[in-house]
Amino acid sequence: MHKLMLAAAALTGLMTALQAAAQFAKPEDAIKYRKAAFTVMGSHFGRIGAMVNGRVPFDAKAAETNIEIATTMSKLPYVAFIEGTDKGETRAKPEIWSEMDKFRTAASTMQDEMAKLNAATKTGNLDAIKAQFGKVGQSCKACHDNYRKE
Amino acid sequence: MHKLMLAAAALTGLMTALQAAAQFAKPEDAIKYRKAAFTVMGSHFGRIGAMVNGRVPFDAKAAETNIEIATTMSKLPYVAFIEGTDKGETRAKPEIWSEMDKFRTAASTMQDEMAKLNAATKTGNLDAIKAQFGKVGQSCKACHDNYRKE
Repeated sequence: MHKLMLAAAALTGLMTALQAAAQFAKPEDAIKYRKAAFTVMGSHFGRIGAMVNGRVPFDAKAAETNIEIATTMSKLPYVAFIEGTDKGETRAKPEIWSEMDKFRTAASTMQDEMAKLNAATKTGNLDAIKAQFGKVGQSCKACHDNYRKE
Repeated sequence: MHKLMLAAAALTGLMTALQAAAQFAKPEDAIKYRKAAFTVMGSHFGRIGAMVNGRVPFDAKAAETNIEIATTMSKLPYVAFIEGTDKGETRAKPEIWSEMDKFRTAASTMQDEMAKLNAATKTGNLDAIKAQFGKVGQSCKACHDNYRKE
């Protein structure tokens, strides 16, 4: 039974990997896609940052619009870290593939912190937004430090 | 009164342009952002296309997820076609800026067709999705033909 479960888990993992790979015709398409998702996420996260840092006046409605997009984007890039996409126009470190479980955990932490920032933004309380914005930023940095080349 | 309305309209237009420009620190940031938004939109629109064309089996839930993202993305790029972003790493034609009203109308048509594809996708009716998918594709092509370099 244990062996059967292991086999089933392996098959599920294989299917997931195949489905993910099937979404991209070429490795460079996957690289381009994940970079694009990070770019859009970073831009909208940065617009909240501008409010948090006082560079632009706080606008609760604009903050909500931006965090909704950033939250949606936070879920997208990771399906594109498929085999064979460690080379080319990418700053992804090889550790992503040799420590995929740790990488996925770090990604999941960022997604959770972003979802919490989404909830904080809906309260309209700038202090709460500031505090949670910092936590999202830390989760971004943790992953960049470990898994992104300079 | 007429002059006052014109002045007010001009001021509103100026404010909108200033706000749009303020979202991007440099022209190349705006170019990178709009290209990224188009890349993510195209990827998710393409995943629906793969179902419409029978390359992958129709999956109503996956189609809904993909059209939601494509619809969100369809609204993003146009704020980034600001003055000074006709040069650099872009295939945007100068006609975008000399015919900005026509360009915005073409963008709006695409957004409307995408919203209709979103509605069609929610019905789960593959024939309706196929028909509307074609209309979105036409609206993409119309804009590319007129406003994107080869």
